[in-house]
Amino acid sequence: MTITTTADRFLTDFHEVAQIGRTDRGGVERQAATDADRQTRDWFVAFARERGWAVEVDRIGNVFARVALGEGAGSAAAGAGSAILSGSHLDSQPRGGRFDGAYGVIASLHAAAEVERRVRAGELSAIHDLVVVDWFNEEGSRFAPSIMGSSVYTGLMDCEEILGVRDLAGTSVREALDGIGYRGDTAGPAGIVGYAEVHIEQGRILEREGIELGAVDSSWYTQKLDIEVFGEQSHTGATAMADRRDALVGAAQIIMLVRDICREFTDETLVSSVGQMTVEPNSPIVVNSHVHLVADLRANDPAIVQRARDLLVERFQRVAEEELLEIRATDFDVRPNRYYPEAGVALQERVAADLGLGIRRMQTMAGHDSVAMNTVAPSVMMFVPSVDGVSHCEREFTRDEDLVNGLRALTGVLAEMVGGALDGVAYPGAAPDARAADAGRSDR
Amino acid sequence: MTITTTADRFLTDFHEVAQIGRTDRGGVERQAATDADRQTRDWFVAFARERGWAVEVDRIGNVFARVALGEGAGSAAAGAGSAILSGSHLDSQPRGGRFDGAYGVIASLHAAAEVERRVRAGELSAIHDLVVVDWFNEEGSRFAPSIMGSSVYTGLMDCEEILGVRDLAGTSVREALDGIGYRGDTAGPAGIVGYAEVHIEQGRILEREGIELGAVDSSWYTQKLDIEVFGEQSHTGATAMADRRDALVGAAQIIMLVRDICREFTDETLVSSVGQMTVEPNSPIVVNSHVHLVADLRANDPAIVQRARDLLVERFQRVAEEELLEIRATDFDVRPNRYYPEAGVALQERVAADLGLGIRRMQTMAGHDSVAMNTVAPSVMMFVPSVDGVSHCEREFTRDEDLVNGLRALTGVLAEMVGGALDGVAYPGAAPDARAADAGRSDR
Repeated sequence: MTITTTADRFLTDFHEVAQIGRTDRGGVERQAATDADRQTRDWFVAFARERGWAVEVDRIGNVFARVALGEGAGSAAAGAGSAILSGSHLDSQPRGGRFDGAYGVIASLHAAAEVERRVRAGELSAIHDLVVVDWFNEEGSRFAPSIMGSSVYTGLMDCEEILGVRDLAGTSVREALDGIGYRGDTAGPAGIVGYAEVHIEQGRILEREGIELGAVDSSWYTQKLDIEVFGEQSHTGATAMADRRDALVGAAQIIMLVRDICREFTDETLVSSVGQMTVEPNSPIVVNSHVHLVADLRANDPAIVQRARDLLVERFQRVAEEELLEIRATDFDVRPNRYYPEAGVALQERVAADLGLGIRRMQTMAGHDSVAMNTVAPSVMMFVPSVDGVSHCEREFTRDEDLVNGLRALTGVLAEMVGGALDGVAYPGAAPDARAADAGRSDR
Repeated sequence: MTITTTADRFLTDFHEVAQIGRTDRGGVERQAATDADRQTRDWFVAFARERGWAVEVDRIGNVFARVALGEGAGSAAAGAGSAILSGSHLDSQPRGGRFDGAYGVIASLHAAAEVERRVRAGELSAIHDLVVVDWFNEEGSRFAPSIMGSSVYTGLMDCEEILGVRDLAGTSVREALDGIGYRGDTAGPAGIVGYAEVHIEQGRILEREGIELGAVDSSWYTQKLDIEVFGEQSHTGATAMADRRDALVGAAQIIMLVRDICREFTDETLVSSVGQMTVEPNSPIVVNSHVHLVADLRANDPAIVQRARDLLVERFQRVAEEELLEIRATDFDVRPNRYYPEAGVALQERVAADLGLGIRRMQTMAGHDSVAMNTVAPSVMMFVPSVDGVSHCEREFTRDEDLVNGLRALTGVLAEMVGGALDGVAYPGAAPDARAADAGRSDR
């Protein structure tokens, strides 16, 4: 089997999976634990079973497929021994893109198949098994927060609490996973000694610079604000303007404050938007009494996010006073900067050089499952270019040749990792010494 | 039976009906064609049947109860002959007040019972029957537009079209009415020669001036704007601020423009709010691509509404250009000023004087079923005070003694109308000559 046929098979599978939950404009609608999500999981399981890989579903609905490669792999029961994990997520945003997440899972499956072929052919020796994963609910659109499956697996979130989270229709994660037949009872594979993920960039940097690959060395500091605005219901026709206490008028000012705060910092050092909003009672002729909003604030520098957050909360109170409303803002989903191990970044650079592909170091503004995994094992995060930098929309696009470049690089990285290339490497998370070690980098 | 016992029975019934769909803060949740709405209808039908009144449900779910009083009433089949109609609506806004609408229906039932008693006792002679009505979906919160039942009955709206209107969950009016067993097949009673309705003011004028009754002489000019904002979905974390085309940011500016436009006109001559809003895809980490808003604009002077509307549409386009969005605004539900017959206003004043109650002429800013009825029969609209002027909320309140004053005045008006007091009176609607006749009034 040559690289070319592996690439062809990968592309065929990638475009086939993009048909599941396909939207009219070329995106996909596969929110977590919906029927479309189930179909992609069934496809993943079938791919693994055809190759004789053992499948495991854990208690939060992560699906794992184990390729037995390591020492004693032939005799050990599935799940025993050390392993390298690789994957991403098959769920999508509402009317999301077909690349975000799915690319990383399908690339991992094909990379794993190629690594297995090389080991079986005696071209490569492995001391670890390889496990491919489809993480549950990375997107967080149906069930908040995002990065749910990998956060439970790594112990960053409590499993029972997360199983009780409900969507806007009142369905719990537990019920939804039972509904699609993907709630298992294990804690997932033990003995994971490394993780690798490939993903589309979702920004413009690689495209603008004409570089094939991005080696992610750190993630931005992010937090959300949960904001509630309380006014009083009244009649849009009969109530005097002076007597209206309109929660929607307060919410409108909050949306603008959240957007405009970015202008008070250096361009693109802070990004911030309100994404989710619910309005009550939401009737054409009623002044609204209650609005709930979720704002998302991100910067590389935590001090910028904290300053913006403080300014916003102060300004919300001014709006509350002027409009005779009550406004409450609560911090949640605070995620510190995370630093990927230098050895993993360097490994990506070596593999790219071997393949003759350009690579640069970069940061991720978006959260990824690898950010969670990097708290329990040395993790590698790799980007391929996104056309126009757009993501979380149907227009999201990455060219086939860039997808294949990412697959080749991931295959190379996994081939090294199953051989022990990152064994014993520190995975510093947000530890101060890692941050200090990072400080001298030229691209910060 | 004395007026006092009639008042007691009325208050008992009024407070009993307020238990149906009761909310924890003393309001009611009885949106059109829900189970709570069905329960009030069942109560209405039981009230009528106990008294031997014939009940009719028309094709749009209005419920009529006919009190046979007129000449030949004893022998004619129910529905034959001329009649005076009186009523309002039992449906509510979401978490609405217990007075809005329900007061007028229950007062009409008790007024009709008292008029019947007087006729049977030989104290009063009637040439018309009396029909009490519970109009379907006056509120328009679940199914838009509002004033649905009386508008279909009077031919202002097309029945088939309205039966096809769907709520946000996709249920049609037809399905919802079938679901509660209140879709009939008649066009409602023929031969209606007059209409009377009593309602809470929903404003502060009567309370501020300490006057018991308001005789409504006209309604404000109203219109709605249906506004759609289109942007592009992207990632709240990974997309550069400069690349975001956030429909919610456009919507926020529209909400503020709609509110602030009122400040460009004399205080309280224009009222305007956005009541309804839907956001897509409404996920915490997605920049929204589509927002739909409904704005409500009202003034006594149509030129003010039209000027405000033109300024708003022009400003929306500026927002669209600045934010790289597409914004479409469409006029709908335009309702011209309506003028109630002078003879009906004068009748209310005579009845109030006989009862020793204060009364003033006034306008209605809110729409009412009487506005629709006034296009087909001379109509009388009467207000009682609202505490603090608040309505469409759980805090809506009118004191028992004001409710009883309104009941007594309505009884007096209906007693005159079944005797022919408004027979042959012109019901001018928005006809120019009516407006000219109105122009000299001192309280305009």
